Amino acid sequence: MLREWKLHLKLGLKRGDGAGPVYVQIAHGLIAEIRRGRLTPGEVLPGSREMAEELGVNRKTVIVAYDELIAQGWLVSRGTKGTFVSTKLPESRSKPNRAVLDNSKTRGEGPQFSRLAAALDVPVIFPKPGIVLLDDGTPDTRLFPAESFARAYRSAMSLAGKVGKLGYGDPRGSPVLRTAISRMLNMDRGLATTPERVCLTRGSQMAIYLASRILIRTGDAVVVDDLTYPPAREAFRAAGATILRAKVDEGGTDIDNLEKLCRRNRVRVVYLTPHHHFPTTVLLNPARRLRLLALSSQFGFTIIEDDYDHEFHFAHQPLLPLASFDPAILYIGSMSKLLSPSLRIGYISAPEKFIDRAAQEILLIDRQGDQITEEAVAELVDAGEVRRHANRALRVYSSRREKLAVTLRAELGDVVDFRMPDGGLAFWLTFETQAYLDRLEKNAVAFGLSFLPSRSFSGKEDGRRGIRMGFAGLDDQGIREAVRRMKAAIGG
Amino acid sequence: MLREWKLHLKLGLKRGDGAGPVYVQIAHGLIAEIRRGRLTPGEVLPGSREMAEELGVNRKTVIVAYDELIAQGWLVSRGTKGTFVSTKLPESRSKPNRAVLDNSKTRGEGPQFSRLAAALDVPVIFPKPGIVLLDDGTPDTRLFPAESFARAYRSAMSLAGKVGKLGYGDPRGSPVLRTAISRMLNMDRGLATTPERVCLTRGSQMAIYLASRILIRTGDAVVVDDLTYPPAREAFRAAGATILRAKVDEGGTDIDNLEKLCRRNRVRVVYLTPHHHFPTTVLLNPARRLRLLALSSQFGFTIIEDDYDHEFHFAHQPLLPLASFDPAILYIGSMSKLLSPSLRIGYISAPEKFIDRAAQEILLIDRQGDQITEEAVAELVDAGEVRRHANRALRVYSSRREKLAVTLRAELGDVVDFRMPDGGLAFWLTFETQAYLDRLEKNAVAFGLSFLPSRSFSGKEDGRRGIRMGFAGLDDQGIREAVRRMKAAIGG
Repeated sequence: MLREWKLHLKLGLKRGDGAGPVYVQIAHGLIAEIRRGRLTPGEVLPGSREMAEELGVNRKTVIVAYDELIAQGWLVSRGTKGTFVSTKLPESRSKPNRAVLDNSKTRGEGPQFSRLAAALDVPVIFPKPGIVLLDDGTPDTRLFPAESFARAYRSAMSLAGKVGKLGYGDPRGSPVLRTAISRMLNMDRGLATTPERVCLTRGSQMAIYLASRILIRTGDAVVVDDLTYPPAREAFRAAGATILRAKVDEGGTDIDNLEKLCRRNRVRVVYLTPHHHFPTTVLLNPARRLRLLALSSQFGFTIIEDDYDHEFHFAHQPLLPLASFDPAILYIGSMSKLLSPSLRIGYISAPEKFIDRAAQEILLIDRQGDQITEEAVAELVDAGEVRRHANRALRVYSSRREKLAVTLRAELGDVVDFRMPDGGLAFWLTFETQAYLDRLEKNAVAFGLSFLPSRSFSGKEDGRRGIRMGFAGLDDQGIREAVRRMKAAIGG
Repeated sequence: MLREWKLHLKLGLKRGDGAGPVYVQIAHGLIAEIRRGRLTPGEVLPGSREMAEELGVNRKTVIVAYDELIAQGWLVSRGTKGTFVSTKLPESRSKPNRAVLDNSKTRGEGPQFSRLAAALDVPVIFPKPGIVLLDDGTPDTRLFPAESFARAYRSAMSLAGKVGKLGYGDPRGSPVLRTAISRMLNMDRGLATTPERVCLTRGSQMAIYLASRILIRTGDAVVVDDLTYPPAREAFRAAGATILRAKVDEGGTDIDNLEKLCRRNRVRVVYLTPHHHFPTTVLLNPARRLRLLALSSQFGFTIIEDDYDHEFHFAHQPLLPLASFDPAILYIGSMSKLLSPSLRIGYISAPEKFIDRAAQEILLIDRQGDQITEEAVAELVDAGEVRRHANRALRVYSSRREKLAVTLRAELGDVVDFRMPDGGLAFWLTFETQAYLDRLEKNAVAFGLSFLPSRSFSGKEDGRRGIRMGFAGLDDQGIREAVRRMKAAIGG
């Protein structure tokens, strides 16, 4: 008759409890039996042949399993005497590891997570089959010059491979791309930066994150707009900042309001998107820009200028960034909107001392970026391919912008309220009555719609609400379908 | 005669003070003059033709510069009356922005950086021309299957481009690669994980960083080996951890010592590299593995198992990871040693609740990785290309390991002390007398050698010292040259 532990072992194998190759399943099965105490220290195991027959497996498989357990110390071989359960086993591991196992049981915040991590709540949306995604301003990646990029990537890789340059490099990023970006910022955007003042990041988010880590101490006051880019606000909050909110109107950040905040608090950092305000798309007007610069020197706060989609401006020439007037400003840009988010290439231009600190942080966070991708992008920038692509894309987006405006007015004119964005890749939709918006959010899933929650931009229950609706990725048919579903959701 | 401000403007242009196109230089020159008060509010500017002649530039250039400044609010146009300096200018910005400008002046830690960032000091080395780099165990990226990867990358990219999948995706990483890695871990390493329990990271460092962010509260005790991987130790320190050190000997982490630490402190996390200890290369012996598992359930600490170069083992079959015996262990791996560090692909297998938290952190840190690279790697894994590459590489590295050992014994036998590593891609060199090591470090630069400081592994002035010497990237000639320079530096 079969010993109990053998029975369990056989059943386990039959059920396929374990994962991986059979020898591992046998090894784990035996460990489980030892831990349960059904196989006891000092007990002899059947010979490999007998065991193989009983389990209905190849004998070699059993031998490998035994060898593994001997190597791991669970079993000991006494030569011809046979194989035994080790007598030097530590206390049974019936008690599970409290520290992390609990996480998989309890759903709520276990004590095992740091308060910091527990506090996070960053909204996220990404494409899912059958769902129409109202993104927050993502480019149409079908326009991305994939062929020329792949060519550039391939040549960069084989070159780097030959000279053994695929290893670890400068944490600030590939010097070639830092040079190309610094040149672009100086020529096209009026900055006076240098490759030593530029650090590459994995998207603009990492630049924001680095700034939050480097500038913020617990309790420092950071001003963001009352409607802002949630991942930025959350990054500052996670760094321990006290978040203050400046009002935003059609002229951008309300500078009178900002000045009030500065008089009441020692404001350390002001984060804003002056070019195309996120989410409302408005431009920070020139008079306010001048006052902002003045306030920053008067109150000594650091300005973080997030210029996430500088390139796409429809109304007139883009204004020069604030950073072109003050080298102390941390200027953040990205290739995500210009080329493709998948490349994960952003950058920050800042005083050299800041960049040196950023390099140290990067060594802790992810060591460096992908040098091959960086050098391939540099090649596209230097070859003018990026600029040509931007011009092509601008034309396409410009007509989609018109089309979306027309469609919204025609289909939802009495429901949604928006102003035509001068630049950027999204509309900011507000609603005649909250009831419409509530219905839209309530029925979104049912009608196959996905978008950032209307409250995420204020991050407050009672904050101003709206929907950020990207148009760059929507062709005619896409626009019609998106608006159709919105209408249905609001009506339903 | 020329007004003073014009003189300065002309000189500035001649000197090429400004960066970028001429119109921007003129605009910035005028702003500088206004700020200095040499151009006063209300003052009229010369007409564009006159200005163009005086500056010796094209008239259109001046018009564009004026328009830019009008748009920015520095100038106002009164139609035919001409262009004037705005009377609504804010206080002069003579005072520079204190917050960040100071950084570029003062070298020491200014108050503008958070204590946290100020505390960092992570050693870093990377290839520089003319320098022989003793890396800490980097693969020979010249062996990397660049062609097949570039092919896979290209097809992944054009496919993704067509279906518009180059946008933002799952912060945990591409499902395809998470599935491939989870399968590999189950089949080859005896884990019982799933794609939902796997999160992709930018190299193994980011996995360590995420763990430090998610598990550590200020003051929590984290045990690392007394000689360990500095970026890991610094990541825990930066997260606010109190670092405790467990002794390491030829059997790996000293578990008696660890148990003492657990009795004296509430240890929250134990970070270790049980397979090829960093930096000493020793294997954590089986008996100690069992005791470690027992201690973790007894004292409730979380084990972080960093298995950074599992694949390269020369002595015998690699032992199954600790994580194959306890699903609560955070298991960290990487493609950096297996394929190439430039790909920036690491991963962590952990309880699902931890992975969900990690996804939230990633949304703050860098949003996501490069999906195209991830899917190209998945293709190589599924096609068996990765395994074939690993076998090829293992053969090459195995002979280089022998060669380095022979060369070291022959050239520095009476100076350096080492044991042949069973696995991994580096030797751990200690020295007969500190004097040798001191000379080596003192003269390294002069003899064109670069390596991690011998004190960086302990992170203490009086800690154990040694040199980690990678051999994977060194062919015969490279080994000879490296050892020659070491000998010269020690002799010199």
